[in-house]
Amino acid sequence: MKNPQIAIVMGSQSDWSTMKEAAEILDSLTLNYHVEIVSAHRTPDKLFSFAESAVEKGYKVIIAGAGGAAHLPGMIAAKTVAPVLGVPIKSAVLNGIDSLYSIVQMPKGIPVGTLAIGAAGAANAALLAAQILAMFDQSIMGKLNQFRQHQTDIVLNNPDPRLI
Amino acid sequence: MKNPQIAIVMGSQSDWSTMKEAAEILDSLTLNYHVEIVSAHRTPDKLFSFAESAVEKGYKVIIAGAGGAAHLPGMIAAKTVAPVLGVPIKSAVLNGIDSLYSIVQMPKGIPVGTLAIGAAGAANAALLAAQILAMFDQSIMGKLNQFRQHQTDIVLNNPDPRLI
Amino acid sequence: MKNPQIAIVMGSQSDWSTMKEAAEILDSLTLNYHVEIVSAHRTPDKLFSFAESAVEKGYKVIIAGAGGAAHLPGMIAAKTVAPVLGVPIKSAVLNGIDSLYSIVQMPKGIPVGTLAIGAAGAANAALLAAQILAMFDQSIMGKLNQFRQHQTDIVLNNPDPRLI
Amino acid sequence: MKNPQIAIVMGSQSDWSTMKEAAEILDSLTLNYHVEIVSAHRTPDKLFSFAESAVEKGYKVIIAGAGGAAHLPGMIAAKTVAPVLGVPIKSAVLNGIDSLYSIVQMPKGIPVGTLAIGAAGAANAALLAAQILAMFDQSIMGKLNQFRQHQTDIVLNNPDPRLI
Amino acid sequence: MKNPQIAIVMGSQSDWSTMKEAAEILDSLTLNYHVEIVSAHRTPDKLFSFAESAVEKGYKVIIAGAGGAAHLPGMIAAKTVAPVLGVPIKSAVLNGIDSLYSIVQMPKGIPVGTLAIGAAGAANAALLAAQILAMFDQSIMGKLNQFRQHQTDIVLNNPDPRLI
Amino acid sequence: MKNPQIAIVMGSQSDWSTMKEAAEILDSLTLNYHVEIVSAHRTPDKLFSFAESAVEKGYKVIIAGAGGAAHLPGMIAAKTVAPVLGVPIKSAVLNGIDSLYSIVQMPKGIPVGTLAIGAAGAANAALLAAQILAMFDQSIMGKLNQFRQHQTDIVLNNPDPRLI
Amino acid sequence: MKNPQIAIVMGSQSDWSTMKEAAEILDSLTLNYHVEIVSAHRTPDKLFSFAESAVEKGYKVIIAGAGGAAHLPGMIAAKTVAPVLGVPIKSAVLNGIDSLYSIVQMPKGIPVGTLAIGAAGAANAALLAAQILAMFDQSIMGKLNQFRQHQTDIVLNNPDPRLI
Amino acid sequence: MKNPQIAIVMGSQSDWSTMKEAAEILDSLTLNYHVEIVSAHRTPDKLFSFAESAVEKGYKVIIAGAGGAAHLPGMIAAKTVAPVLGVPIKSAVLNGIDSLYSIVQMPKGIPVGTLAIGAAGAANAALLAAQILAMFDQSIMGKLNQFRQHQTDIVLNNPDPRLI
Repeated sequence: MKNPQIAIVMGSQSDWSTMKEAAEILDSLTLNYHVEIVSAHRTPDKLFSFAESAVEKGYKVIIAGAGGAAHLPGMIAAKTVAPVLGVPIKSAVLNGIDSLYSIVQMPKGIPVGTLAIGAAGAANAALLAAQILAMFDQSIMGKLNQFRQHQTDIVLNNPDPRLI
Repeated sequence: MKNPQIAIVMGSQSDWSTMKEAAEILDSLTLNYHVEIVSAHRTPDKLFSFAESAVEKGYKVIIAGAGGAAHLPGMIAAKTVAPVLGVPIKSAVLNGIDSLYSIVQMPKGIPVGTLAIGAAGAANAALLAAQILAMFDQSIMGKLNQFRQHQTDIVLNNPDPRLI
Repeated sequence: MKNPQIAIVMGSQSDWSTMKEAAEILDSLTLNYHVEIVSAHRTPDKLFSFAESAVEKGYKVIIAGAGGAAHLPGMIAAKTVAPVLGVPIKSAVLNGIDSLYSIVQMPKGIPVGTLAIGAAGAANAALLAAQILAMFDQSIMGKLNQFRQHQTDIVLNNPDPRLI
Repeated sequence: MKNPQIAIVMGSQSDWSTMKEAAEILDSLTLNYHVEIVSAHRTPDKLFSFAESAVEKGYKVIIAGAGGAAHLPGMIAAKTVAPVLGVPIKSAVLNGIDSLYSIVQMPKGIPVGTLAIGAAGAANAALLAAQILAMFDQSIMGKLNQFRQHQTDIVLNNPDPRLI
Repeated sequence: MKNPQIAIVMGSQSDWSTMKEAAEILDSLTLNYHVEIVSAHRTPDKLFSFAESAVEKGYKVIIAGAGGAAHLPGMIAAKTVAPVLGVPIKSAVLNGIDSLYSIVQMPKGIPVGTLAIGAAGAANAALLAAQILAMFDQSIMGKLNQFRQHQTDIVLNNPDPRLI
Repeated sequence: MKNPQIAIVMGSQSDWSTMKEAAEILDSLTLNYHVEIVSAHRTPDKLFSFAESAVEKGYKVIIAGAGGAAHLPGMIAAKTVAPVLGVPIKSAVLNGIDSLYSIVQMPKGIPVGTLAIGAAGAANAALLAAQILAMFDQSIMGKLNQFRQHQTDIVLNNPDPRLI
Repeated sequence: MKNPQIAIVMGSQSDWSTMKEAAEILDSLTLNYHVEIVSAHRTPDKLFSFAESAVEKGYKVIIAGAGGAAHLPGMIAAKTVAPVLGVPIKSAVLNGIDSLYSIVQMPKGIPVGTLAIGAAGAANAALLAAQILAMFDQSIMGKLNQFRQHQTDIVLNNPDPRLI
Repeated sequence: MKNPQIAIVMGSQSDWSTMKEAAEILDSLTLNYHVEIVSAHRTPDKLFSFAESAVEKGYKVIIAGAGGAAHLPGMIAAKTVAPVLGVPIKSAVLNGIDSLYSIVQMPKGIPVGTLAIGAAGAANAALLAAQILAMFDQSIMGKLNQFRQHQTDIVLNNPDPRLI
C-alpha cells in the first residue's frame, strides 16, 4: 500500500466528530491518509516535529482542523512548505467565527487555504486535497470526476423537493 | 517557455490593485501565470468556458479574487476539478466580511481554499499555489525554501522595532 | 390552467422546509407556480439552462432560496432579465448571515431582491411576487387586498395578548 | 409623456448622493420616474398619504432608500400592495448593517425586496424595477437586453487588468 | 382607580412571552398599565391612531416591544411626544441584533430609549417607566426604593454561590 | 433661573464633541442643564457621589455618554432611581458596537434607556429628556411640538432632493 | 492555612455554573481562594468596599466573571491596583459578545486581563492567576509545571482520535 | 540596573506604533523592559526559544502584541508558564476583531490575559504588568498609586468639557 499523501490533524479529540467527514470522503475516494491529534497549545513541540517532518514523510497536503483561537493550521504552515488546508471547528460560544478568523486571516508570507466552518468544511478539505493530488495523478482525477458526476446526478434525478 | 500552471482571475478591473500582489509573488518566484478578468455576474458564459477548459489548458491551480457577493471562485470550482483558491476582496461597505462569507462558506461537495481578505490574501494565494506545485517539482520547492528563509532573515536581522 | 408565472427554485432538498412557505402563500392566493431543485454548485449547467429559458417559459418572477455561500439567486439573475427574488436560508453555523450577505451584496449591474432570512423571507418572496403580478392583473390585486385585510383583521380582532 | 411607473423616495436629502444612482440607471434606460423625499420619522403622515395613493397614481414599483433604523421601505410596504424595493443607505457608524437589517428583516406578511448597501444597491433597485416592468413591456425588455450586452462587452473587450 | 399612565404595546401575540415581564414588574409595583397588540406592518392605521391619542389618553410613557425589522417603537415615537421605550424582542435567526439595531439607531429628531434584548429589557422598560413617573410622584419613588433595596438584599444575604 | 432638571455627564473630555449635540438641543428648547465630566474608571468615587445626590439636586433625567467598555451610564443607574439615558460614543476601533452593547445590555433590575451611537444619539437623548419633562410641564410640551413641527416643515418644504 | 491570595467574584448566582471551573482548577492546584457574589448593579456599594480592601486583605489576583453589560471586572479594577482578570459569561441572547466587549474594551488607564468567553475562560483565569503567583513562589511553579505536563501527556498518549 | 522583569514582543515592525504605548507607560513608571520582534509565522523557532527561556531570563510578565490571525501571544503562552498578556493590534480590514478573537479565545489549559484592541490595550498591558509586579514590590505599588492619583486628578481638576 502506498504511503499516505494526506495527513489529517486536529487540535483535540472532540474535533473528530467534525474531522471524520474528511476521512469519510477520502475513504469513499479510496485514498490513504494519516490521522493524528496534534494540539498547538498543549503539545507545541509535537506540532513542530510533525510539521518539520511532513515533507520528508511524503505528505503532499495537510488538513488541519481547530476551534476557538485555532492556531494549529497556521503554526503548521509556519513550519512546512507542504500546503495546509484549515478547517474551522464550530465553537461553543461564537459558532466558529473565532475559529474562522484565526485560521483565514494569516499574514502575508504563510498561507492556509481555509474551508467552511464545520462538517462541510472538513469534507471539502478532503475534496480539495484530492483535487490537488488529481492534478498530478490521472487515477485520482478519474475518481473525482465520478464523485462529482454522482453528486450531480442525485440532484438531477430528484428535481422535485415535494416528493421526498 | 513552459505553459503557465497557475491562472489568476478576478471579477473586475478594480480587483487588480489587490490581485497584483499574487502576480508579484509569482514573479518573484519566477513562475509563469495567466491573468484575466472573468466576471461571474456580467460574463457568466465566459466563466463557464474558462472553468470547463481549465484542466485541458494545463492550469494546476486557479486563483480567483472577488468582492461583495463574491460568486466567482465558487462557480469556477463548480465547473472544474482543478483546485480553486479564493481571495476575498475588501468591499466598500462591509470590509470584505461579505466577500469572505460568500467564498468560504461553500457547501459540501465543491471546495474553495480561501485566503485572508485583501492584499495579504492575494499574496498568500500565490504562495499556496506555489507550495502545491512544489510538492511535485523540486525546483519550485527550492525557490520557496529560499523565499521563506529570506522573510525569516528579515525578522531575525531586525529584532528591535525602535531602530527603524 | 394558465402556465405558472412564478418559479420557486432552491439549492437543495433540505431547503424545502423553508421554501414551502412560499408555496403555501401562493396556494392560498390560488396562483400557479413551478417548483424545482437547482443547485448552483452541484448542477451549474442545469442552473444555466433553467435561467436561459426562464423568460421564454413565461416566468415573470423567479424565487430562489439558498444557504451558506448562496450563489443560486445571483447566478440565475446573471443569466436572465426576469426579476429574481432571493431567500437566504438559515445556515447551520452562521444563522444565515452568510446566506444573506451572499445574496444581497450583488454588484452593480445584476440585482437580486432579497427577503428576510428563513421562513418569513420565503413567505414574503411569494407575496412580493404576487404583488408584482398584481400590478398588471386586477384579479391578483383583489386577492392580495383580501389577504392583507385578513391579516389586519386577525390583529384588530385580538388586541389583548393576555387572552390567548 | 407617459406617467412614471417608478417612484424613488428617500428618507432625507443626504440620501440623494446614494439614490441618484437609481435615477441615473433609469435615465440611461429612458424610463420616467418620480423622485421625492419622504421621511418616515419626520413626516409620517406624508409617508402614509404617499403610500396610500401609490397604486392610484400608477406606480408599479416603489424604490425606497433609508439609513440607520431605516423604517421608510417597510412602512410604505405596510400601506400599499405596490412592490417596494429597499436600498440600505450606508450609515455613519455601522456601515449600513443597521440599515440592511431594518429593511430586509421584515416580518411575514409585508415584503420589501432588499438590494445591496449603498450605491450599488440603488443602481440595482432601478435595474430590478426595470426588469419587473420589462416582463410586461417588450420595449423595456429590449433596452435591458442592450444594457446587459453592453456591460458584458465591456468586460469581454478588456480581459487583461494590467492594460489599464 | 387612576387611569394608567403607562401603555405596553407589542407587534404580535408571540411577543407577549417577553413583554409580560414588563407587566409583572408593574404589577409588583402596583402600577396600572394598558396592554395592546399594535402591529406596525399589519395594522399601520391602528398604530397611527394609537400614537396620536396617546398623550390625550394620559399615557406618560409608552413601552413598545418588537422583533426583526422592529418598526413599532420608532413609528409610535414619530407620531407622539410621549416618551417611547423600546424593547428588542429576541428574533428567530439573528438573536435580536436586527431588532436592536432597528430600534436603537433612530435618526436625529425622533428618540426611542432602548432597553436590552429580550426579557431583561422588557422588565427594565417597566422599571425605567416607573423611575420616570417616580420623579414626579413620591409614592412611586418609595415603591422603587423598596424594590431596589429588596434586590440588593437578595444579593447581600446570599454571598456564597456554592450554597445554592 | 430654575435649577436644571437635566444633567449631561460624559466619561472624558473627548466625548464632548459628541455630547455637545445634546446641549445644543436643550439650548434650542431653552432648557437648563448641568454638564460635567465623570469618569467611571478614573473617578469612580466622583461617579458614586454624583449619582447618590442626583435626586436631591433635582435632576429628573441624567444623560450619560461613554465609549468602549462604557460603564458610566450603567453605574450611575445602579446608584440612583433617577432615569438614566445612555449615549454610546463611537469608538476608535469597533465603531461604537462595544459602547452600545456595554450600555444597552444591562441586567434585569437596573435600566438604562439607550440611544443611537454617536451624535444622533446625543441629540435624541436630549429630546427624550425633554419629552419626559414635557409629560409634566405644558410649556415644554409646547416647545417640543414646535420643534417637531419645524423639522417636519423642513422636509415638507423641500420635497425634491435634486434642487439642493 | 495561608490566607487566600486569589478572590473569585461574580455578578450573580447563575454565573457560578461557569465560574466553578476556576474554583476546580485552583482546587486541583491546592491553592486557596475566596468566593463571593458581588453585583456591580445590584450591590454597587459592596463592590466598592470589596475592591477598596482587596490589597489589604492580601488578594494578589482578583478573578471577576460577569455577563451582558458586564461592569463588574472593570469597576473593581477602577478601585484597586490588584490585577483583575475578567471572565465574560456567555449571555442568553448575544452569546457573550456583549460580555466580552464590556470587559475587554477598557479605556487606557484601567486594565482588565480578559479571558475566553465561558467555562474555558473561567478555568484559564484560574491558571493565569496561578501563573502570576508562580512567578514569585517556586512551589506553585512546580504544581503548574506538573499540571501542564499532565495535560500534554493526555494528548501525547492518545494520538489517534478514532480509538475513543 | 536590575534585569527587566517585563518583555514586550510583537509580530512585526509595524506593530511598534501600537506597542510603543506599552513602552511609554513603563518608562513613565521607571520600570525596565525588554523589546523584541518575534514573528509566530515567519520566525517560529525564535518564538519557541524565546518562550522556553523566558522564566530563566527573569521575565515575570510577557506582553505580546499581534494582529490578524494573531498567534504570537497564544503560542508563547503554550511554551512558558510566565503569564502572557495579549494586545490585539487593529487590523487593516476587520478592525482588530480577528486579532481579538485569535488572542482571547484560547482553549482551556493555556491562558492569555487579553487587553483592549489597539493603543489603549498596549498601554493597559503595561499597567497590568506593573500591577502584577506591584503585588510583590512596594516601590512599584507606590508608583502605580501615584499614576492612578494623577489620572484621577486630571479628570477632577477639569470637570467642565466646555472649557477646553
